[in-house]
Amino acid sequence: MNEGLRLRALRKSMAALQVEALIVTHLPDVRYLSGFTGSNAALVVTASKAVLFTDSRYIVQAKEETQAARVVIAKQSALKEACALLEASAQGASFDPQDTTVAQLAAMRGALTGKRRRSFFAPLAKPVVSELRMVKDADEQKAMAKAADLGNRIFEATVPHIQSGVPETEVAAGLEFFARSMGAEAMSFETIVASGPRSSLPHGRASARKLPRKGFVTLDFGVILKGYCSDMTRTVHLGKAGREEKRAYAAVLAAQQAAVAAVGPGVTCGEVDEAARSILHEAGLGRYFTHSTGHGVGLEIHEYPRIAAGQTLELKPGMVITIEPGIYLAGKFGIRIEDMVVVTDRGHKVLTPVNKELIEL
Amino acid sequence: MNEGLRLRALRKSMAALQVEALIVTHLPDVRYLSGFTGSNAALVVTASKAVLFTDSRYIVQAKEETQAARVVIAKQSALKEACALLEASAQGASFDPQDTTVAQLAAMRGALTGKRRRSFFAPLAKPVVSELRMVKDADEQKAMAKAADLGNRIFEATVPHIQSGVPETEVAAGLEFFARSMGAEAMSFETIVASGPRSSLPHGRASARKLPRKGFVTLDFGVILKGYCSDMTRTVHLGKAGREEKRAYAAVLAAQQAAVAAVGPGVTCGEVDEAARSILHEAGLGRYFTHSTGHGVGLEIHEYPRIAAGQTLELKPGMVITIEPGIYLAGKFGIRIEDMVVVTDRGHKVLTPVNKELIEL
Repeated sequence: MNEGLRLRALRKSMAALQVEALIVTHLPDVRYLSGFTGSNAALVVTASKAVLFTDSRYIVQAKEETQAARVVIAKQSALKEACALLEASAQGASFDPQDTTVAQLAAMRGALTGKRRRSFFAPLAKPVVSELRMVKDADEQKAMAKAADLGNRIFEATVPHIQSGVPETEVAAGLEFFARSMGAEAMSFETIVASGPRSSLPHGRASARKLPRKGFVTLDFGVILKGYCSDMTRTVHLGKAGREEKRAYAAVLAAQQAAVAAVGPGVTCGEVDEAARSILHEAGLGRYFTHSTGHGVGLEIHEYPRIAAGQTLELKPGMVITIEPGIYLAGKFGIRIEDMVVVTDRGHKVLTPVNKELIEL
Repeated sequence: MNEGLRLRALRKSMAALQVEALIVTHLPDVRYLSGFTGSNAALVVTASKAVLFTDSRYIVQAKEETQAARVVIAKQSALKEACALLEASAQGASFDPQDTTVAQLAAMRGALTGKRRRSFFAPLAKPVVSELRMVKDADEQKAMAKAADLGNRIFEATVPHIQSGVPETEVAAGLEFFARSMGAEAMSFETIVASGPRSSLPHGRASARKLPRKGFVTLDFGVILKGYCSDMTRTVHLGKAGREEKRAYAAVLAAQQAAVAAVGPGVTCGEVDEAARSILHEAGLGRYFTHSTGHGVGLEIHEYPRIAAGQTLELKPGMVITIEPGIYLAGKFGIRIEDMVVVTDRGHKVLTPVNKELIEL
């Protein structure tokens, strides 16, 4: 893939921040920059070097996967050997404070032998790797479109199985079986199947509760394909929806469509959030929209940018985000509709173009 | 469940370390101490208080799940409001450096208004919550026995589907469908199905590769039931195993059985590791056993203790650990056999008593 180009872009960001050396330990960042997918790794990047440290479980895999960095199989600790190399080759090094624990930092400092121990490691002023990862390159966009499309097909295969009397877990089981059978490496998060009053729980993981004769059912799920996550939500209705339900659904859909329509290069994340929020507010449902409008998605299910009130970051072509307004009336019902959207040169493209009109089953 | 008792035990540990107040942000720890299962939480514990901070997505759920702690729905940041309460009610507070990022610590300090900002938060000298969690109470042991038993049944249901020509992902799909259908909330980690030469990858997630006509197939998987993880591995052989394969399998099995037999109260984790390692060493296979013998398991798939060389921690009744020696001959084959074992008053009990003799399919 494009690890060489990514390392080049990273070195540019590092130079702009006057960062001489960087240690990367967050595994999705390591994968992004080196291709390595193992569960233990530390990547050292300087202007001239890129060295991946891992352990003996990954002798074969690390060599297969890692083209743009040299591979070192650590005898004891990958992290400590990475720090030793840093100390030998730089005056100081940066790390991402979002993804480094206090204990890790202490271990990193403990691995140094010289006098500079206390001051050697400095937190990055900006999360440079996360920022690079926001904008997906052509290969990534292709991978994400495929993951999203798999999600679309899974949803369509699952709809006939949404029937009253069936436990939520069984709907999830069917959905996940379709996912695996169609080639998903894994689900990108715990599948949400929330029915009836449980649909008012924004994070209602599938439970043993049986689907009601009448009421909303929210499905929120995603798959992983070649490491990239998909994420989509649809809310369907078992039986005929009442007037209040129809009105609420229409408001959420209008809000969702307005936010999608707002997506384009140069638009701020806060403006996209506001496009959804203002419509729900006008419909008198604003106080039931208790979360932000969306988030970036990629190698992780939640990435930058945050599509939330007040966010001044401007969207750029190549960013892939979710648009997922929802309302939650405690004990009554909830509705959420979510698409994955890629920002293009001129506007946007929806990666999950599955029917969003109210489905009554 | 037993959150009240757990908080009491935690306060004892805190008193022994002269810790006046503790902030808990690691979600499995929060769940263990409060019952709350949401995705955003900060729990403040002092000698007299236990207060859970979360956000408005969890208004209903937090009240339903949390008995032993008071619930506060934060207006802005759960973490910051927790810190403000701490500042108002204690002279200082501790945190777990293993589970607190450098950025979180900076945010925690930033939430304080007084002069003590720099010195207010101190890392715990020992991971007190992780240590409590090592020893499972009666309810936890019951939950884990059920999770392990579900794993046993899933394995037995999957064996007939291990057939040459079937892609590894399809075996994983079937296994995970059985898991869901039998009530699993989720898989506890990405299912490993590694066949033929891929069985020599200790972490070979299921790939598109088709199972060979002849060769080992390693299945390593686990489910989550009521929040608790199971973990087991079996390696079967497609077709008749050759002499080298049989000899290697017998050595791994002997090592695994010796380590299981060694488990009991008062035995050190290092002694259990050595029981497996010495047998593989004598069989001339020691250098292919490239990882540690096992790990604790519970609300997380990897917990304390570590069953590894040199670990001096003594096993106690109620600990639940895995015993999983394996050998990996790069490009040829790999074999791993793993049980979940609970330490009892007098010895141990195997929670995954599924056939370990070589199965030739």
